[in-house]
Amino acid sequence: MKRMAFWLVAVTTLAGVVAFTAPAPGPADQQAAPVFGIKIYPGYRDWRLVSVAHEEGNLNDIRAILGNDLAIKAYRAGKLPFPDGTVIARLAWTYVASEENNKAFGRNQSFVPGPRPEWYLQFMVKDSKKYATTGGWGFAQFDKDGKPADEAMHKTCFPCHEPAKATDIVFTRYAP
Amino acid sequence: MKRMAFWLVAVTTLAGVVAFTAPAPGPADQQAAPVFGIKIYPGYRDWRLVSVAHEEGNLNDIRAILGNDLAIKAYRAGKLPFPDGTVIARLAWTYVASEENNKAFGRNQSFVPGPRPEWYLQFMVKDSKKYATTGGWGFAQFDKDGKPADEAMHKTCFPCHEPAKATDIVFTRYAP
Repeated sequence: MKRMAFWLVAVTTLAGVVAFTAPAPGPADQQAAPVFGIKIYPGYRDWRLVSVAHEEGNLNDIRAILGNDLAIKAYRAGKLPFPDGTVIARLAWTYVASEENNKAFGRNQSFVPGPRPEWYLQFMVKDSKKYATTGGWGFAQFDKDGKPADEAMHKTCFPCHEPAKATDIVFTRYAP
Repeated sequence: MKRMAFWLVAVTTLAGVVAFTAPAPGPADQQAAPVFGIKIYPGYRDWRLVSVAHEEGNLNDIRAILGNDLAIKAYRAGKLPFPDGTVIARLAWTYVASEENNKAFGRNQSFVPGPRPEWYLQFMVKDSKKYATTGGWGFAQFDKDGKPADEAMHKTCFPCHEPAKATDIVFTRYAP
């Protein structure tokens, strides 16, 4: 009985540690996004910062754009187009006022990330051969639980990005 | 003459590469901030993301909070107080509307980083012995060119942070 209690504690503790440290929101065997076949990149939350942004309107989120090593290297070198293997991740959080910060500042001015919104996570993956018909990029969108969006939604990515041809259809610039 | 032209091009190119890739804004022999004696941490721009924020009002900036390895580990483990050696960096950029993004979204909603504001960079450094009289934290603020703020400004940091005692006088939470 004692031993069983030990294991219960050990397993619960381990689950807690995994929940706190796991960088990907979904399980290891998570679903690939349709159209482009992209899965959530393990460790994306450890990638370096490209930039930040705030979207008003229906999105009403605050976001961080992270990049894998190839992305950061290309951004910093100012080299376009991005090389094959580049992956850019967009993380979004609900946009909430921080009462604690406002109290410290003495006025209502501070906005911080709240819980994940419905569409928490997106990836752009450069593979000029595999994704030749969509500007050399594959796109993927996942919800707050790591479930990919449907096919119809994934077909909207490229037409929206296409106007940004001058920057290899990537909207985000590197924050200096 | 040909050789001289080569060197001119080589040096100019090298200067360009350094300007693009150097993570710290100041020179290597840059000045330490007064009161706490903190210098800009080389490589801080490569640190992992803690969170993002937007400040309205006089600041009117959009910011990223990055942490060194100890900071990220402590945040993810939910462990307080932060261990000695923790360093948290706050990078701020001017808050500007993105015309390009707005065109893609079909409405005015998108805000992104512009050039560095006057007070671009701050650090909080945990050293419970060295900074015992200020909650175990040292504070440093640098302008957009890497020049530290004056002594008077550095004396305002701790009194403002002190109310956040429940979170080891750190305001920023980890963005999940």
